[in-house]
Amino acid sequence: MPQILDSTAPDFETAFSALLSAKREDSPDVDAAVAEIIADVRARGDAALIELTARFDRLSLTPETLAFTPGEIDALCAEVPPEERDALEIAAERIRAYHLRQMPSDESWTDAAGATLGWRWGPVDAAGLYVPGGLASYPSSVLMNALPAKVAGVGRLAIAVPTPDGLANPLVLLAARLAGVDEIYRIGGAQAIAALAYGTKTIAPVDKITGPGNAFVAAAKRRVFGKVGIDMIAGPSEILVIADAANDPEFIALDLLSQAEHDESAQSILITTDAAFGAAVVAEVEAQLKVLDRRAIAGKSWADFGAVITVPDLETAAALSNRIAPEHLELCVADPDALADQITHAGAIFLGQYTPEAIGDYVGGPNHVLPTARSARFSSGLSVMDFLKRTTLARMTPDALRAIGPAAETLAAAEGLQAHGLSVTARLRKLNR
Amino acid sequence: MPQILDSTAPDFETAFSALLSAKREDSPDVDAAVAEIIADVRARGDAALIELTARFDRLSLTPETLAFTPGEIDALCAEVPPEERDALEIAAERIRAYHLRQMPSDESWTDAAGATLGWRWGPVDAAGLYVPGGLASYPSSVLMNALPAKVAGVGRLAIAVPTPDGLANPLVLLAARLAGVDEIYRIGGAQAIAALAYGTKTIAPVDKITGPGNAFVAAAKRRVFGKVGIDMIAGPSEILVIADAANDPEFIALDLLSQAEHDESAQSILITTDAAFGAAVVAEVEAQLKVLDRRAIAGKSWADFGAVITVPDLETAAALSNRIAPEHLELCVADPDALADQITHAGAIFLGQYTPEAIGDYVGGPNHVLPTARSARFSSGLSVMDFLKRTTLARMTPDALRAIGPAAETLAAAEGLQAHGLSVTARLRKLNR
Repeated sequence: MPQILDSTAPDFETAFSALLSAKREDSPDVDAAVAEIIADVRARGDAALIELTARFDRLSLTPETLAFTPGEIDALCAEVPPEERDALEIAAERIRAYHLRQMPSDESWTDAAGATLGWRWGPVDAAGLYVPGGLASYPSSVLMNALPAKVAGVGRLAIAVPTPDGLANPLVLLAARLAGVDEIYRIGGAQAIAALAYGTKTIAPVDKITGPGNAFVAAAKRRVFGKVGIDMIAGPSEILVIADAANDPEFIALDLLSQAEHDESAQSILITTDAAFGAAVVAEVEAQLKVLDRRAIAGKSWADFGAVITVPDLETAAALSNRIAPEHLELCVADPDALADQITHAGAIFLGQYTPEAIGDYVGGPNHVLPTARSARFSSGLSVMDFLKRTTLARMTPDALRAIGPAAETLAAAEGLQAHGLSVTARLRKLNR
Repeated sequence: MPQILDSTAPDFETAFSALLSAKREDSPDVDAAVAEIIADVRARGDAALIELTARFDRLSLTPETLAFTPGEIDALCAEVPPEERDALEIAAERIRAYHLRQMPSDESWTDAAGATLGWRWGPVDAAGLYVPGGLASYPSSVLMNALPAKVAGVGRLAIAVPTPDGLANPLVLLAARLAGVDEIYRIGGAQAIAALAYGTKTIAPVDKITGPGNAFVAAAKRRVFGKVGIDMIAGPSEILVIADAANDPEFIALDLLSQAEHDESAQSILITTDAAFGAAVVAEVEAQLKVLDRRAIAGKSWADFGAVITVPDLETAAALSNRIAPEHLELCVADPDALADQITHAGAIFLGQYTPEAIGDYVGGPNHVLPTARSARFSSGLSVMDFLKRTTLARMTPDALRAIGPAAETLAAAEGLQAHGLSVTARLRKLNR
């Protein structure tokens, strides 16, 4: 059973604080093993990659078979049923269209002092995308990571996807092709992250690595950070639904379960203004849990981390939501836009009863890689910005230097940085000669 | 002596690669000590902070004296000479004006399927800014960190600045006041980062921590990342100057020295199309090194990591610059805009001979917190974006769900996520009833 809470109860704050700080994920300490793997790949390159892939994925590779050939990709893509191909194309088109709107603009202006200032955006040269193998090998995640990179203008995009026992997911290959991925390697784990970050004879290094992965992948990403850029380290998925009594309990139950079915560590929370509606949703979740394929996973997540919170009004709902800072937030109320205006922290907001979170996972358009574990307080979902960087520009005229140079001389002197000051002084001396 | 290289020499690639990969900084392994300090502050709060401050800063505090009082700040600000106050105000005004232009806009649109999509930006609730004590306690860095946060709309901004033996830098306090900082604490090191991230009885926790610091501060920032957001981990400063023969060797020498004087690990590189000009700059650096206050530091940096590279043309200069991905790049050539168009990776570009890098350190307007150690390949300088996060928004109408829902159902089925699909199916069933 999930926790059933009432925000007006005297012990609510204690229970809610415990819910907020609940540790949902074991983090096995694999850091020492990962450090060794990275050192091995840096030292021995392809040979280490091939050995580690044989050991972990039971797959025998050579430098020539590390990458899928175009022919192999063709053959796998041909296995995808037309209906799935069509769906993937719809998703790719909508995700591309959304992310195209995110492209920031360059700016340049001249101010009153005569200084020309501005900035310019440009893509990273090469990006690597990690795609987990096995059960959690999601073609939708390939689109969500690869399309922002391509929209940003990344020149070279490489995928690392482990193929345990040689088994590849055709839909992942098709997603990579639709997104314009340039290279696909049959490698996984910390060794794949090391190869992408440092390069081997066969695999050129990249500048940025994104994509989800297990504890080894996460530890490896933390370790190569600095040598390359990385995206966030994602935790287990979460959903918060704020719903009034005018909703169909079945819809809300399925939305809660669509996070719970991801992972035993996932968390699904309902906040409602109507206790009876909350009870109806709980009953509907129990009914669905009898028949869902992934009922073992979803049931454990719901029992361990699920919660239903009754509140007297939507202002209270918004205040609690802002403390949770959920990854996914559904606003199933009469005026979702008005409620959204009260939300300060959330990865993604889904407005109204016809916007289930699952739409956002696949075809809505916004990215489904979103901040978890309350990190929406300070971070954002994946976007084209993750594959761009900004260079600032400044140009002084002699008059501009005359106007603002003396202030720089004063501050340099105050900070004890004499050469800083002299670099301005020497120019002003020449100008005033 | 710096390295003198010629890009057309047969051994150039070897020497240049070595220059690129030179490790300039010892990273003492303080991680275990930092882990202990953080655990101590989490467990004992103010008591731990006070003990550690007594031990490391030789300063006896109480919970009541952890923060500067407004009266103490007034008194210190009154010590600042009027000329320095004026210079700081000019800097603050120019930095604020530049960063105001960076504020991104919210977007919302309805697409052909009838889906309303968009995003919204919002500030983090609270940010903490670390300011080093002692020699490297720079008021300019206070402005460069605090003003973007305030422009972004951060509600609460706290500074941690150690005051060894009780000594505070009045200009740092004045910079904090000019930038609108709300709280200033007399704490430093890993204990300050722990207090900002986890909070104590006296210090409320923040959501984002920025600002430079020593190895302890850097290790602590890495450790609290995830609990809060952090900015980059900055390395030693760097400058690359691309200059033709039409420059004054004194200007260029002082620009190179203005990085070298920061730190023995700093790096200053000149790329020039004229070997004789390069030699003149080297001679001028030697002459300046005889008289500079910080000649010991600057001389060691220049001897250990300085370089002068002669190239046949500016295209070669741009290509080498892009491999270096410098933090600061000066383009002292006849047409700096044309050369800038060839630059793909740089933290900040300074155009023309009247734009010394030192202008950017203080009063130019763009941020002086910039990516070091070649990380301009994948990251940007500090900006208002570091204190904002984006929430994506999506709203489906019944027609929109009819149009794109089936693709989501297909992909959910292909990924084996049944509840995801059912959350769409249940709604479509009701709509089609």
